[in-house]
Amino acid sequence: MKIIKDSVHDHIQVDGVARDLLDTPEMQRLRRISQLGTVSLVYPSANHTRFEHSLGVYHLACEALDHLNVEGRQAERVHAAAVLHDVGHGPFSHNLESLTHRRTGRYHDDVHDLLADGAVGDVLREHDLDPNAVADLVAGEGRFGQLVSGELDVDRMDYLVRDAHHTGVPYGTIDHGRLVRELTFVDGELVLAEGNVQTAESLLVARALMNPTVYSHSVARISKAMLRRAGERLLDAPETGVDAETLQRMDDYDLIVALRSCEATGEFSRRLDQRDLFKRAVWAEIDDVPGGIIEADHETIREFEREIADEADVDPEHVILDVPSRPSMKESTTRVVVNGEIRRLGQQSALVEALRAAQYSQWRLGVYSPPELRDRVGRAAVDVLGLNIDGALVREVRDGLDATLDQFVD
Amino acid sequence: MKIIKDSVHDHIQVDGVARDLLDTPEMQRLRRISQLGTVSLVYPSANHTRFEHSLGVYHLACEALDHLNVEGRQAERVHAAAVLHDVGHGPFSHNLESLTHRRTGRYHDDVHDLLADGAVGDVLREHDLDPNAVADLVAGEGRFGQLVSGELDVDRMDYLVRDAHHTGVPYGTIDHGRLVRELTFVDGELVLAEGNVQTAESLLVARALMNPTVYSHSVARISKAMLRRAGERLLDAPETGVDAETLQRMDDYDLIVALRSCEATGEFSRRLDQRDLFKRAVWAEIDDVPGGIIEADHETIREFEREIADEADVDPEHVILDVPSRPSMKESTTRVVVNGEIRRLGQQSALVEALRAAQYSQWRLGVYSPPELRDRVGRAAVDVLGLNIDGALVREVRDGLDATLDQFVD
Amino acid sequence: MKIIKDSVHDHIQVDGVARDLLDTPEMQRLRRISQLGTVSLVYPSANHTRFEHSLGVYHLACEALDHLNVEGRQAERVHAAAVLHDVGHGPFSHNLESLTHRRTGRYHDDVHDLLADGAVGDVLREHDLDPNAVADLVAGEGRFGQLVSGELDVDRMDYLVRDAHHTGVPYGTIDHGRLVRELTFVDGELVLAEGNVQTAESLLVARALMNPTVYSHSVARISKAMLRRAGERLLDAPETGVDAETLQRMDDYDLIVALRSCEATGEFSRRLDQRDLFKRAVWAEIDDVPGGIIEADHETIREFEREIADEADVDPEHVILDVPSRPSMKESTTRVVVNGEIRRLGQQSALVEALRAAQYSQWRLGVYSPPELRDRVGRAAVDVLGLNIDGALVREVRDGLDATLDQFVD
Amino acid sequence: MKIIKDSVHDHIQVDGVARDLLDTPEMQRLRRISQLGTVSLVYPSANHTRFEHSLGVYHLACEALDHLNVEGRQAERVHAAAVLHDVGHGPFSHNLESLTHRRTGRYHDDVHDLLADGAVGDVLREHDLDPNAVADLVAGEGRFGQLVSGELDVDRMDYLVRDAHHTGVPYGTIDHGRLVRELTFVDGELVLAEGNVQTAESLLVARALMNPTVYSHSVARISKAMLRRAGERLLDAPETGVDAETLQRMDDYDLIVALRSCEATGEFSRRLDQRDLFKRAVWAEIDDVPGGIIEADHETIREFEREIADEADVDPEHVILDVPSRPSMKESTTRVVVNGEIRRLGQQSALVEALRAAQYSQWRLGVYSPPELRDRVGRAAVDVLGLNIDGALVREVRDGLDATLDQFVD
Repeated sequence: MKIIKDSVHDHIQVDGVARDLLDTPEMQRLRRISQLGTVSLVYPSANHTRFEHSLGVYHLACEALDHLNVEGRQAERVHAAAVLHDVGHGPFSHNLESLTHRRTGRYHDDVHDLLADGAVGDVLREHDLDPNAVADLVAGEGRFGQLVSGELDVDRMDYLVRDAHHTGVPYGTIDHGRLVRELTFVDGELVLAEGNVQTAESLLVARALMNPTVYSHSVARISKAMLRRAGERLLDAPETGVDAETLQRMDDYDLIVALRSCEATGEFSRRLDQRDLFKRAVWAEIDDVPGGIIEADHETIREFEREIADEADVDPEHVILDVPSRPSMKESTTRVVVNGEIRRLGQQSALVEALRAAQYSQWRLGVYSPPELRDRVGRAAVDVLGLNIDGALVREVRDGLDATLDQFVD
Repeated sequence: MKIIKDSVHDHIQVDGVARDLLDTPEMQRLRRISQLGTVSLVYPSANHTRFEHSLGVYHLACEALDHLNVEGRQAERVHAAAVLHDVGHGPFSHNLESLTHRRTGRYHDDVHDLLADGAVGDVLREHDLDPNAVADLVAGEGRFGQLVSGELDVDRMDYLVRDAHHTGVPYGTIDHGRLVRELTFVDGELVLAEGNVQTAESLLVARALMNPTVYSHSVARISKAMLRRAGERLLDAPETGVDAETLQRMDDYDLIVALRSCEATGEFSRRLDQRDLFKRAVWAEIDDVPGGIIEADHETIREFEREIADEADVDPEHVILDVPSRPSMKESTTRVVVNGEIRRLGQQSALVEALRAAQYSQWRLGVYSPPELRDRVGRAAVDVLGLNIDGALVREVRDGLDATLDQFVD
Repeated sequence: MKIIKDSVHDHIQVDGVARDLLDTPEMQRLRRISQLGTVSLVYPSANHTRFEHSLGVYHLACEALDHLNVEGRQAERVHAAAVLHDVGHGPFSHNLESLTHRRTGRYHDDVHDLLADGAVGDVLREHDLDPNAVADLVAGEGRFGQLVSGELDVDRMDYLVRDAHHTGVPYGTIDHGRLVRELTFVDGELVLAEGNVQTAESLLVARALMNPTVYSHSVARISKAMLRRAGERLLDAPETGVDAETLQRMDDYDLIVALRSCEATGEFSRRLDQRDLFKRAVWAEIDDVPGGIIEADHETIREFEREIADEADVDPEHVILDVPSRPSMKESTTRVVVNGEIRRLGQQSALVEALRAAQYSQWRLGVYSPPELRDRVGRAAVDVLGLNIDGALVREVRDGLDATLDQFVD
Repeated sequence: MKIIKDSVHDHIQVDGVARDLLDTPEMQRLRRISQLGTVSLVYPSANHTRFEHSLGVYHLACEALDHLNVEGRQAERVHAAAVLHDVGHGPFSHNLESLTHRRTGRYHDDVHDLLADGAVGDVLREHDLDPNAVADLVAGEGRFGQLVSGELDVDRMDYLVRDAHHTGVPYGTIDHGRLVRELTFVDGELVLAEGNVQTAESLLVARALMNPTVYSHSVARISKAMLRRAGERLLDAPETGVDAETLQRMDDYDLIVALRSCEATGEFSRRLDQRDLFKRAVWAEIDDVPGGIIEADHETIREFEREIADEADVDPEHVILDVPSRPSMKESTTRVVVNGEIRRLGQQSALVEALRAAQYSQWRLGVYSPPELRDRVGRAAVDVLGLNIDGALVREVRDGLDATLDQFVD
């Protein structure tokens, strides 16, 4: 048995298949994939990695299985899935996911391939585990799939607490010890035991508060959009020879240096390295944005960017249109026992609807450009996109928010 | 300058009027008044006192005033109010408040008297402060009254964080540093600056989660009801010579020993000392309780208890009917600047309504009795009170919840 | 199984004999015995109790036994001893120990009697445990006695971390998780496994730093001496009917109220309640104190006090002579495996001798009196005790230290 | 004013010259220099950077200056020095320092050049600060130099607490709030005020415990030695065009990718990336090592390595001889006021000598090689270096320690 010290869960005991998996090159690579990508440009202490997160998820899975009295092969399969659940992540975690998925056309198969191949596949087979069965768990399938990837999974429990610890934002500090202890199986389904409506709500609330403060902080969104644009240019530059598959297998170090070395990505790379970021030219609420734009695909959005640049008479590389998808709330389907029946949290809790509404009210379409161009780009964007706001309001709202940002962690 | 080490805020600098007030017998008495009363029967680490809380409130008030650039006499007045805001608390803090107020018929005057008299009045006058002006602040009046006692006051900020620290329940861990920094005056009113809707919501959410988990935990409510009943018997026992005024001036030590010494309170005292508590015979939701009972005054409730005892054929001392008042949510009126205008949080945030609904769904009428009598008392109570539940359901709900309690901190 | 939330160890699972023991009146009484006695007059957050500490010791014992693979009856015996190790404590924990032991003439027998009698004895026997065997463990005897009461016991591990948590002084923050995991049995003796010299040293260092900062802080010592004097007067007052046995069975609440009610202890009681404490008239290093005084018994010390009062022409009740015993260092005998051999930490580590020397340099004889008498009493004490310091130095040292104290937590 | 959230000090207010310095490319580069280099291969959460550390040092400097009542230009100079104190760090912080200094022949001049040039120099001059005066402070010169770089500097206070927070090892948790408050100037020298011998000792002890557990953990030392060897090979490979100056200006990302791309460093790079590290073939105490080896210069050590490789008949790249310099203890000269006089801590505290002795007893010469070669390399090294240990002991000691390591964070 090996014991690893973790800044969140203190001592983590690692044994069996988990121990051997941690030693594979595929898992060691996660030491160089940051957990929160560009969020560290807002919260400078947020430099934690997917490796320590994977350890934490494994640790919570062990605790949950202990309480559920699951042992042996079944437990080892879940341990492996917990350790491996992020092994397919590309550089900067989720920041470039949409780009690589668009270019490779694949998402789900990956996990099954990744777990069957190379050192990971070897370790799994040595421990008599079927890589496909482990990959199913990672994909959230099967009786224990919900524990690894579901509404109440240990992934979420670890990242909320870990992100809170490393950013310094206390909102993610949930009671994971209680959550893990209150999980139980009823009719083959993983649910929270009687008396835990509020325990489930606390998880929901933690995510709802971490979202705008951390995960979707405007500066994190701007720098992520810039990184994505730079990644796209890198793939389009024939001389680099980098395709989407290669990009997906890079770590943060490879990518940062590749962006520095390529002429087409030089400016974005310098801006990201020096934190000389674009600023918001438009920051519009969902009600002020035509539905067509919210549903637009990548090509249409690129087209809008070119039109805005045209109308503003600026280089198209200096306009980024950032349209998040409609908010969803997976946790609302959390199952909890109430008076002996399994109910969905969304049926039981008035909070779920309120948090959904809060998400809608926090949704923002962003148009970003270099600071000196933002007035021109802002006016052009309102016009081209048909936003329901007049120029004065754009500026006013923008300045109000910027003032705040200047004061807090901009 | 004096520096005091606090387990929540680390070093607290104490100076001027605050320093002298801390040395008065009135403030030193708060060392022997527990912050959360009977909650320590649920969370055994929750032994913190009103004294350390008062220090914490003073500390946060200093930080807020620094950010608001308030100095001199004005600041000293607020410092004094922050230190003194709980000086009138009786034993076990809020646990016996309803009893003493009912018997003395007074509530609000107290603070003005308390601050003008004795060592406290002397210290205030030595520092050229008018005790009445300080008492106004404690009562939430005036420009700075909101800081001491309002929707966004430093009292609430300290107790949430402190109660979380000492119970071990993480839900109260708000970002008080940010709250204190974002307070500002607009048109003479204390408000949260632009960009802080979510900061305000986080405070609301913290209270909403701490409420059922800590402040209204069923075991805390049962033991508080038992303590209140014991207090009432003590006042009714002529030989003790204790009246409501005397009781109000006691500390926890005086009261506990008085209850032990008095024959009429002997059983309750022994039960509280040994944690041999009554159990829930009924635990009914607000929708199942006739409105008349919810609005009933003390005498009517006492009458109901006698009727239930009669019908169940048990000693009236073995029935406690515990009817909390309708939930309210003071924080919904928090003022926050949105797009340059002052708005009420309740207008702006969908969460407020949801949390209000959550409070309603958590509201419970309780009937408590010794464990061996709870079936008889439960059936009688459903009948006498006209509750909209049948006997089977009473038992089922009760057992579900009790099962949970047996597992968690009962 | 029952789960209790603790502010130090988070969730503590309680089961078997431990669970039943916690419900006895003897254990519930520990909720009203403060862990650190008068230390809360220095650190206002230090209001934790022997009850929560006992829970913590039980929790660490469970973890250690898990790692040692000890189960069944043997484990239950240790569990019981861990829960019960402080059940005999009198009010204010160690503060009055010397007094009650002097008066009752007993110390060690107590534990065996206490564990055989009453509800505790009943519970032990119901669980097929021999109260004497459990009492032996509490007394540090037998193979597992060292785990409960030895140089490396879980008692020490819990109190260091808990006292640090509640005072806010970080020095006690040891790595108890590692200590508990590294315990092992070699040749029937509990030792620290290879590679843990430094782990052992860290425990030693934590105590060495907590000692002067917390446990022997001058204000805690003064108030403890005042409390002990008041306790002595209480026993001497025939009208109270309190003898040493009764005193030993009181809780903090009983004692505080008894001191308030008795005329002979009125002044001390008021002073303690209002934190209107005596001050140091003398604070002398060990090298400046004649050996005879350091070894003097209680009667001799009382005689010195009368002589000092005589010479200073003050009421003998206004002079307290406080002579700590020579420092010892039990932890120096900690056994740790080095290159395959069991060695004593004192042989292996240069730190042990240095910490012993540090303890000697921090040793202080104190003479305390009301502030207005301290010059007269100080001069008289130097004279009567034959201290090797002149008057000027007494004052200078005293003022230097007082200045510090005025700044930090006096 | 800007406020930045830090996971250690919570909110850090940044203003004036500090704010502008943080925006320079030179400071932003520190976001990509890890604070502890290869220590993250032992403690996977230790991914913090020099950027967040620099912020923390600035924060503590502000607190110290507040307490010392230093304002205006003088304060701004110290603020600038605190922010900039690590701006010259090369990739992986101290890991490659000895290499680049040996190759460039420069160390001290750097700071003065760095602060006068580029964006940093511009910002300093815009704020009317002389870059040379700021560089002097960074070098520890002048009245306030001791605050930035001395025995009691804020650099040390921040890194101990920050490294403890991120590794999860509690030993570094000092009371920095007290240290910063107790600094004072006496006769132009920065000292700790009366009553703080123990405060000074606590800092010393924290470093003494963090040293073997974190900074000199054997696995951190092995991987650092491998990284240094790889860096040396990179400089020696003519085709890379990397010289020592270039290396020094790289960040961690540049270096990692450069090592991956260069044939001569391919194996080391793969081993570091996959944590497939060399193991200890010898681990010898200072008393068993001839003095000549301890004092040997780089060339001599390289010569020993070749001889060991020769005798063991292995590739010279597979032998690393790691000889730390003799332990020193800068903190022993800390000045603290005792009875009104300034004394050196080393004169006053028996702990200083003991900790020095402890450092000597922890000193280890290491010889590292691939696991499969360690027996051959170990025997050859004992022979070539004339170590005073026989083969059996080497193996025994080694296995004892390795066993521990296998259990803890190897």
